[in-house]
Amino acid sequence: MRSSTLKPILTGILAATIGTALFAESHAKLDPAVAARHHQMQMIGYHTGILGAIAKGEMDYDAAMVSAAAQNLASLATMERATLWIEGTEQGTTAGSRAKAEIWSDPNGFAQSFQALADAATALTDASDAAAVGAGMGDLGGACKACHEKYRGPKN
Amino acid sequence: MRSSTLKPILTGILAATIGTALFAESHAKLDPAVAARHHQMQMIGYHTGILGAIAKGEMDYDAAMVSAAAQNLASLATMERATLWIEGTEQGTTAGSRAKAEIWSDPNGFAQSFQALADAATALTDASDAAAVGAGMGDLGGACKACHEKYRGPKN
Repeated sequence: MRSSTLKPILTGILAATIGTALFAESHAKLDPAVAARHHQMQMIGYHTGILGAIAKGEMDYDAAMVSAAAQNLASLATMERATLWIEGTEQGTTAGSRAKAEIWSDPNGFAQSFQALADAATALTDASDAAAVGAGMGDLGGACKACHEKYRGPKN
Repeated sequence: MRSSTLKPILTGILAATIGTALFAESHAKLDPAVAARHHQMQMIGYHTGILGAIAKGEMDYDAAMVSAAAQNLASLATMERATLWIEGTEQGTTAGSRAKAEIWSDPNGFAQSFQALADAATALTDASDAAAVGAGMGDLGGACKACHEKYRGPKN
């Protein structure tokens, strides 16, 4: 193999390696508050996923699991925001952030959006079968969507 | 450059790329409950870090921040465990898990360990200055350490 044929391969591999390294780097260097918010959102997604899977019959209905998922969702939605939504960590100024400036210019609206999620989750705590879980998923998904539309910016 | 000199370089780069890809892969494929626990632990670490930084004077004392961090810690420590500590996700059977089997064989002890963290956090809610935060950090750190020693296995 001649170096002229190897070079593009090598360049491609190097680019891929550097790309991966930069990706890892950017994650490692995320502002701690932004990283913590991502962890919060991941946990919200995880618990919503459990309820969704039960609603769809992909996971067996289990009263204790439904109640635990709903309670944890409510806890996550009512986390104190002072440590997480720190001023100056909005999209455009802070790597990895998709937080819109409206989070800080409209704190009451933002608080109400999280409260809507907490309420929708709490309503599911006693859902007595998969159909009852399904019936509550609309409000839950709606709360996620409404908040993301108002307060989350486009993908970075 | 001859291919005999390029080959080791290429092999090294390929190995690095594959290594990084496997690392990303293993993280992407974590059992969802294990990943959710990691998010919980990261959030616990984040909030403990805020209190620690205030205690050490690395961050200005701020009553609202201390209270929020302490309350979030207490919330995280009292999360319902049914969704997170799912049986069969212990170290050795589930990639990335460091959860010891004792979590499931000694559920009361495990619950008490998390309660100790919640209590230590709650005690810090009203800490009125950096010294008061510092005075409570021993119990907080002690709760982390005691639980890790009993219920967390060695690094994977």
